[in-house]
Amino acid sequence: MRKALEGLKVIDLTTALNGPFCTMILADYGAEVIKIEPVDGEQSRTWGPIDEKSGESGFYCFVNRNKKGVTLNLKTEKGLQMFYDLVKDADILVENYKGGVTKRLGIDYESVKKVNPTIIYASGSGFGQYGPITHRPCYDIVAQAMGGMVYLTGFKHTDPVKVGPSIADHVAGIYLSVGILLALYNREKTGKGQHVDVSMIDTIFSLLENAIVNYTIGGFIPERQGNIDPSICPFDIYKCKDGFVALGVGNDRLFKKFCATIGHEELLEDPRYKTNVSRCENYVPDLQNIIRDWCKNYTKKEIEDIMDKAGIPCGPVLNVKEAIEHPHIQAREMMVHVNHPTAGEQYYQGCVIKLSETPGSVEAPSPLLGQHNAEVFGLTEEEIKNLKSEGVI
Amino acid sequence: MRKALEGLKVIDLTTALNGPFCTMILADYGAEVIKIEPVDGEQSRTWGPIDEKSGESGFYCFVNRNKKGVTLNLKTEKGLQMFYDLVKDADILVENYKGGVTKRLGIDYESVKKVNPTIIYASGSGFGQYGPITHRPCYDIVAQAMGGMVYLTGFKHTDPVKVGPSIADHVAGIYLSVGILLALYNREKTGKGQHVDVSMIDTIFSLLENAIVNYTIGGFIPERQGNIDPSICPFDIYKCKDGFVALGVGNDRLFKKFCATIGHEELLEDPRYKTNVSRCENYVPDLQNIIRDWCKNYTKKEIEDIMDKAGIPCGPVLNVKEAIEHPHIQAREMMVHVNHPTAGEQYYQGCVIKLSETPGSVEAPSPLLGQHNAEVFGLTEEEIKNLKSEGVI
Repeated sequence: MRKALEGLKVIDLTTALNGPFCTMILADYGAEVIKIEPVDGEQSRTWGPIDEKSGESGFYCFVNRNKKGVTLNLKTEKGLQMFYDLVKDADILVENYKGGVTKRLGIDYESVKKVNPTIIYASGSGFGQYGPITHRPCYDIVAQAMGGMVYLTGFKHTDPVKVGPSIADHVAGIYLSVGILLALYNREKTGKGQHVDVSMIDTIFSLLENAIVNYTIGGFIPERQGNIDPSICPFDIYKCKDGFVALGVGNDRLFKKFCATIGHEELLEDPRYKTNVSRCENYVPDLQNIIRDWCKNYTKKEIEDIMDKAGIPCGPVLNVKEAIEHPHIQAREMMVHVNHPTAGEQYYQGCVIKLSETPGSVEAPSPLLGQHNAEVFGLTEEEIKNLKSEGVI
Repeated sequence: MRKALEGLKVIDLTTALNGPFCTMILADYGAEVIKIEPVDGEQSRTWGPIDEKSGESGFYCFVNRNKKGVTLNLKTEKGLQMFYDLVKDADILVENYKGGVTKRLGIDYESVKKVNPTIIYASGSGFGQYGPITHRPCYDIVAQAMGGMVYLTGFKHTDPVKVGPSIADHVAGIYLSVGILLALYNREKTGKGQHVDVSMIDTIFSLLENAIVNYTIGGFIPERQGNIDPSICPFDIYKCKDGFVALGVGNDRLFKKFCATIGHEELLEDPRYKTNVSRCENYVPDLQNIIRDWCKNYTKKEIEDIMDKAGIPCGPVLNVKEAIEHPHIQAREMMVHVNHPTAGEQYYQGCVIKLSETPGSVEAPSPLLGQHNAEVFGLTEEEIKNLKSEGVI
């Protein structure tokens, strides 16, 4: 079956998470992604969890599936020359160095454009390619903090808390793939390449939703509210017999059904709960406590089934094992497996975007270090040996 | 200046957040997005914050900027006919109805394909277009819970907490735009349209990072850890004089600098803090407390400046006002303003993806209800009056 990005060659200089997550999407949907690593491997090859028998990093394997892997020391003359040979007929280059590094290495957009004027050159980074603090190093936690996400997450009575997984890295990687595809479509129409720049701090800021207009139009600084939504009620997470469930009762029609479902139709007569607005104002503590008390008597599964039957948006708070094993996640092929040459059968996340004609898929495991040196550079065993001893690959 | 998606016509049937955030990206980068609303307006027109003098929703205005707006009652024969006239030469259709609704309305992919075989038909939803619980209603909080994000967010000693802003809605919208652009590139090459399906639950699941491989390869179920990273240390958020700061000390080199910076070089002699792995194991309580005590004596700004000078990844936890006013956010044009015909000057988030040749921009405010009926449908005033009285537009 054809894949959407078949025939496109991507030079992948990325490390860790933000860049590799972007090129993973490109590879899943058919691009030939050639990952260039330093001769001792990129940093995330040592990140846990490590497969005991092979020493492979689960993290690295997940995010680099479907890619080819070569090694190259860009600080050697020969290495730089081999890079330029490779990039000459590439369609896309993706990098996520800290600002300024590509220039120092002689592989910045201006330099690459000289040998490949139509290339799409995509840069992912913490703070982007321009702006007063573009030079600063950044981790996910810093972007989450400065972009405004941490302040808005957590309970009123506790310290602010970051989002568990590294969403700044991930979402910036997804945005970067949007940028590449926008540039690609433009190139189809105009023949022109360009530079794509996505930062993690802009990414987080863009996800703040109406927190921004609440300040610029509403005139107040939003505070974190735990699991409560300021404009929908009841909308919360409740403790039950064996865990927690999320409930969203979005309008008056649903509230009517909800009250009948939990056996509290007297709430419909209470003027405090007449409208969504009045429910929002009067939710804590009485209405919240009534629902809390009801939930205590059931398991996650029981509440899910009851609410499903009533047509009320509801779902259990699942841990990783429960989410993996959920029949819906399984049916949507969100867990895939692949056979890794040294680590054996591996299981990780599948492809989110379901395309009817050109579906994405996971077909190849992540590369071993330098696995595709011979194939990609067209080298004999002898040449490989020599370049290795010179520290080039 | 040319925009990347110039010349593309998008029929936008979306409401609330997930779908509209996707079509906002398409509109920002140049597509002509025609938003079809029910005759009484889509639900988010009533969502706060409401501009006092005009009654316009800040939420709606933000996420529907750059779009044209028409009204159409798809449950009338005439309305459905006008929809099909419009969709005939469209490139893309985006919808985020609950599973099954487009079929009931007679506007599902199979039906639309009959009049426009090359259309790209994109569906955003809570649970996707197939799978055992595809029919269920969903809110962001439910997708965050079932996708595994809530369980991993929050402190060890507190209940699980959702991510403040609606990231399931947002990120699913971004993924949907990736899907549309993949399909668009494929159509350039093959002439074929297709159906794109993105769900919020798959989206959240895809962001769990190595939490998944920690289970499938590492063999344990990850628990929430507040602001601590299981594999990097020190990596945490600390209270200071006037708020909180995030610090990420990612490797031994940085740790050396960090200890010198906070005047605690004796830590380098402590065998507990020799390597990143041993620091992770021995962080709580002693090392954490030493850093907490140091941070107490400084303001956010002071710590940021000190760490910037030392080259250590660090940033303050900013509230919405502070993030908006940050010189870097301003320099990267992440706040834009636009003149709305009834609400006046509005300020909200700008475009994340910076393209050197075909930049996105915010040029037009969100449409008034039915503002572009005459232009889009090619109607006279008389015809508009008649169609309105028939309840069609």
